[in-house]
Parts: sequence; structure tokens; C-alpha cells
Amino acid sequence: MSSQPAHPTLLIPGPIEFDDAVLESMGHYSESHVAAGFVATFGETLTMLRKLFQTTNPASQPFVINGSGTLGWDLVAVNLLEPGEDALVLSTGYFGDGFADCLRAYGANVTKLDGPIGGRPQVADVEKALSQKKYKVLTVTHVDTSTGVLSDIKSIAAAVKKVSPETLVVVDGVCSVACEELAFDDWGLDAVVTAGQKAIGCPAGQSISMFSGRAIQAVQNRKTEPATYFASMRRWLPIMQNYEAKKPSYFATPSPQLVHALNTALKQILAKPLTERFNKHIEVSDRVKKTVTDMGLKIVATKPEDQSHAMTAIYLPEGVAIPDVLPKLLSKGIIFAGGIHKEIGTKYIRFGHMGVTAVDPRRNDVEKALEALKGVLAECGYKA
Amino acid sequence: MSSQPAHPTLLIPGPIEFDDAVLESMGHYSESHVAAGFVATFGETLTMLRKLFQTTNPASQPFVINGSGTLGWDLVAVNLLEPGEDALVLSTGYFGDGFADCLRAYGANVTKLDGPIGGRPQVADVEKALSQKKYKVLTVTHVDTSTGVLSDIKSIAAAVKKVSPETLVVVDGVCSVACEELAFDDWGLDAVVTAGQKAIGCPAGQSISMFSGRAIQAVQNRKTEPATYFASMRRWLPIMQNYEAKKPSYFATPSPQLVHALNTALKQILAKPLTERFNKHIEVSDRVKKTVTDMGLKIVATKPEDQSHAMTAIYLPEGVAIPDVLPKLLSKGIIFAGGIHKEIGTKYIRFGHMGVTAVDPRRNDVEKALEALKGVLAECGYKA
Repeated sequence: MSSQPAHPTLLIPGPIEFDDAVLESMGHYSESHVAAGFVATFGETLTMLRKLFQTTNPASQPFVINGSGTLGWDLVAVNLLEPGEDALVLSTGYFGDGFADCLRAYGANVTKLDGPIGGRPQVADVEKALSQKKYKVLTVTHVDTSTGVLSDIKSIAAAVKKVSPETLVVVDGVCSVACEELAFDDWGLDAVVTAGQKAIGCPAGQSISMFSGRAIQAVQNRKTEPATYFASMRRWLPIMQNYEAKKPSYFATPSPQLVHALNTALKQILAKPLTERFNKHIEVSDRVKKTVTDMGLKIVATKPEDQSHAMTAIYLPEGVAIPDVLPKLLSKGIIFAGGIHKEIGTKYIRFGHMGVTAVDPRRNDVEKALEALKGVLAECGYKA
Repeated sequence: MSSQPAHPTLLIPGPIEFDDAVLESMGHYSESHVAAGFVATFGETLTMLRKLFQTTNPASQPFVINGSGTLGWDLVAVNLLEPGEDALVLSTGYFGDGFADCLRAYGANVTKLDGPIGGRPQVADVEKALSQKKYKVLTVTHVDTSTGVLSDIKSIAAAVKKVSPETLVVVDGVCSVACEELAFDDWGLDAVVTAGQKAIGCPAGQSISMFSGRAIQAVQNRKTEPATYFASMRRWLPIMQNYEAKKPSYFATPSPQLVHALNTALKQILAKPLTERFNKHIEVSDRVKKTVTDMGLKIVATKPEDQSHAMTAIYLPEGVAIPDVLPKLLSKGIIFAGGIHKEIGTKYIRFGHMGVTAVDPRRNDVEKALEALKGVLAECGYKA
């Protein structure tokens, strides 16, 4: 079976459990970041990202930069907007609010539309906001990891095309890329920013993103130079283009080991049709949601159509506390996360069921986790 | 012997060859970034950095952030300076110039003192510049990887204390930390920024830095909020303090695998006195420099006291070209780097001799590399 030592199963909304081959790639022997072998690996990795994001438009541009999911927000905030420009932020929790904070840090003028707790802003409200002011960008969190709320990116992008087609559509896909349907070209997206350690199944340490030709043009046509160095897309653009063309190039040193791990993870993902992968995540998510609902528990994302397939945020029963539940789960070999929503954070737990946990038939993570949760709640005196 | 597959020996000025145990740590099974086990590892890693940088002042603050050495420049540029403030940059090559570019990107008013090619600005000139204008920060590249020039940090820091004690002394230690003497407290430094993939011997992917209490105060006392999110030291400060206090904390997801690798590398380094490590690097460097000089070759860093012990930049003989030399070296299993100095880049090669290559007695990297270089130059028709 696995070459990894025995360890509790990590079922938080990222980092997730990793496949053996991906972890083995992390230990790749040292290579020059500008030598032919590594340049070929990096170039192939960037090309595979086009498939993962479902874009065949040659103007689309992938970026892989050492950092984290958060750095993707900075890329958007400092490159796509100039100080004082307007951004419409759709928030479904902690991470939507964080994206707004990041945009403000760089001087954007932010209007935030909040969904109710466990829900999302309505498309009609989005259309209304777009008709009242001209926004340079709209940002939306595909799956807000704090609530497990899924946004309807296709409908929002269509609303933008209808009401304010010049507005760039930016998706925080940190907890959705590689597990939720996300069609870059078909839906007309301008930026999707993500990270490796969620459904892609690669250890944390990279900001992974795709920008449209239109977004790249917006960066090139800026009146002011972006006030950043490490996060400057103008500086990174020729580097990414060179790597993909298999030409050595240098701005800041990438992590060859993380790139190898991402390469391995992407090859595994793309070996099967993406639809099959998305359906598998839906199937597992449906099973989780049915089981916890049957146990009498409530899901933070209220309506079924608002529920992410990557994770489930579950309210604990009255009188049962996170500091009791998480250690008891750990003693049964299962790691869930606590809540992080600013208003309801102490009341719910989060169960990530992405990547190998959802798609590897040799694993039994979900069933083990659901059994453990049942047992723990019973120990806490809860009767379904 | 090594558990790594056979591969050419990477002797560029970083990334360097890695120890087996460090690479094995890269494949650590997945952990939550806020779980007790990983928090303890990260906290211990931060505490070990204090020893590596030679600071016992509790006000000193280590940071480890996903990124690269370059991100350290951004930390300095956007946090220690406010737009329009003055920076004095001492440049000994490509990376000194890069630090100046980064500072300018964030709006600093930069005065650059350039050394001659292969040399460094004189301390008297530094004192003169400091006496003519009040600089918020002075930056100096300890070892400029483009030239192999070593700066005299101790004397420069002393000059600052004498002429302009309020000026913050910032060292780019990317190619010096863990191989050159660098005494944070004793020399009165305010910031040293580095990366893992040079003498520390950890795969690339992290910005590793130490800031003095005075530097942290400068960040806290700013009149304006730094225009950044991911590189905001105000946001990272409580996170680093919490990790070191073994308390879970979250701003952006660190890379548990890279932190484990750094932890392993630091344990190896700190198992012996640092002086012994520095002396070993000097001994190896002296051997390299003597051998190439005996071969009739010239070293880019002209004076012995200006020569780094981490690497050697070597002019090729007249009529011998980099595109001939590097592939021939590779065929003998040795990887050197080409030049990257904007004026002399095509005329020299760079040989990194840091980390395990210098200190692991089981390896024979340096002798193999010198033999290979002799053989290749002979094949190219060069006679010593």
C-alpha cells in the first residue's frame, strides 16, 4: 500500500492527503532552475495547467510562482487594478472578505456584496451593482473554505457579460480548481487564482493561476507601474512564456521540487477526463451531506445548490464543543478543521473530501471519517 | 551511500546539492498547518534561525515565508521604507542592482554606490554618502552571486553606527548565510534576508529572514500602511511569534514540507560550531581559488579580501566560450553556471562550493569539478 508512514488522515479543506508519487517527487535531486531538464518539466507543467483550467485560447497565460493561495490575491490586486480603481467583491465568508482586504491594501476602491451566512449573493443583486457603477474587476470565491459555500461562477460571469462586459471576472479557485467544474474559456473568465494543496493534491508553496489575454492586456496597458517586485506580472510574464517555450529564464528562483510535485499531480489528474473527476467529487460530497443530515446535523451552506463538493462545513449539535470533538476525532485517526467564520467560527467543523480522498478507490477516508464522527458525537452524548 | 539516483553534480551558486535527509523531509506526509505537530516543527525552526543568524536578542524576529530570496527584497522595500524615503544601495553586481530596482518599484528614492567590476564600494565612500544625506536604510549584498564579490559587512555596519546610527543596516545574505561569518547582534544588523537553496542546503521555495527589534519598530511606527498583503510584515509578525510560541496561527498557508526540510537542514548545520562550518568553506574556497589561479585563470573578484567563500566566478581564457565549456563539463557530470553580470556575462563561469559540497567529507565534489574543468579547458585547446 502507501509508502508513507502511518499517520492520522488529514481531512481538512487543505492541505489534503497526498498521493505517494507526488510526495516522492518532492524529494527530487537538485537541479538548476535554468537547466534543460527542469525547464522542460516546468514548461510541461504550465501547458498541463491550460488543460486543468479548460482553456485552449493561446492568449491565456498560466503562472506558477512560489507563494501560497493568498499570493494570487496580490497578483490580482496589484496588477489588474491601479490605485483608486473599483472592484466589486462577492463574499461568501472569510476568504471573500480576505480578498477584499487584499484589494484595499493596494488602494482599490472596494464594494463588497455579502451573502447571508451559509448563502451567496443573488445574481440579481450582482447585476444591480454592476449597473450602478463601472467596476474594473469583479471577484468571486468559487468555494469559500470558511463556509463550504459554492458560488455559481457560470451565472455570475454571464451576468457580467450582459451588464458590464468590460469588467474582468476574477475567480478565487483555491478550493475549487480540480474538483468543481470551472470552464475558463466557455464561461469567459479573466483570472482564476489557486494553490496546490487543495484538490490539485500537491504540497503547499505555490501560487497557481491562469489569466486571460484580456487580463494580460489590462496589465500591459496600465498607466502606472505596479508597486511590487516579486508579485509583478510584467516581470513574471516573459519568464512563464520562456519556460513554456522550453527556454531558460530567470527572475526569481522557482522551487524545482514543488514544480516536480505539481507536474506529477497534474499528470495523475489529466490521465482521466476532468468530468469524471468532478462527478466523483459530487458523488462523495452527496454521500457526506446525506450522512450528516441523516445524523440530524445541519450544514453551514444552507441550500443544496450552494454546497461545495470539496468540503462540508457542519454545525455541531447544541452543547457539543469543537475543543471536545477535534481531539476525540484525532484519537480515531481523523483530522477535521474547526470553523473560521468570524460570526459562527466556534459552532461548526470542516471536513475536506478532495483529491485522493475522493478519487482513489484504494482509500476509505470518507467512510472512516463519517464513522469516527458518529462515534465521537455519541461519546459527547449526542443522539441522532 | 546516497539514496538519491545518480545525477550530475550541481555546483552552481544555488540551488546546491542536498543532503539525503533534507530531501527525505520534503516527502513528509501531509499535516495541517495549524496542528500541534507541525506548529512545534515550525516553531523550533524559527528558534534555530536565531542561532544561525547569531542573535540572542529576544527583540530579533525571524520570518519564514513561502517565496524565494527575491521576496526578501520586497519585505524590506515595502515594510521598512515608506514611499519617497531614501535608501543607499551598495552594489557589487547583478543582485545589488536588483535590490535597487525592487526598492524603486515600491517608491523608494535610491542612491546606488557601485563597486568596480569584481570589486566593492570603499568604506570611505560609504561614509561620505552617509554624511551627505540621511538614509532610512542602507542595503548591501554580502555575496553577490553574479560576481562572487564578498562585502565587508562588519566594517560597513560600523561605518553606519559612526556616521548615521539611525540608518537601518540591511544585508542581502542569500549567498552568505550559513557559509560566511555573519554576526547579527555583534555587528548591529537590522535585517538579513536569505533563501534556503544556497548554503543552508534546503530546496528553494522560502524567503528566510531576520529583523532587529529596531527594524520591527520602524515597521510598527510607519505613518502609512504598507501597500502589500502577502509581503506585509505587520500581518506576518503575530503569525511568526505564535508559531515560535507553539500556538497555531493563520495568515497564509506555509509549506509544511519545506519547513520540515529547513528544520532538518538547520539541525545538521547547528550540530557543529558555526565557526567550524565557516572555516571549512574558507578552506575549500582557498583550494578552488589557488587551483584555478595556478591554471592561469583569473577570478572575477579581483582582490583576495573581496572574494566570497561560497563560490568562485572564473574568467574563461581568451577564445574559450561558455557554450563550449558548460556542455563539456556536463558530459563529465559537473554543472557550473554561466555569467550573469550585464557587462561581462559572456566571459566567465560560476562555480558554487557551498553546503554539503564543502562540508560533507564523504563527497568529492570540488576535486571532481576542478579535474573536469582542467580536462574541458584542455579539450578546448587551452594550455595553462
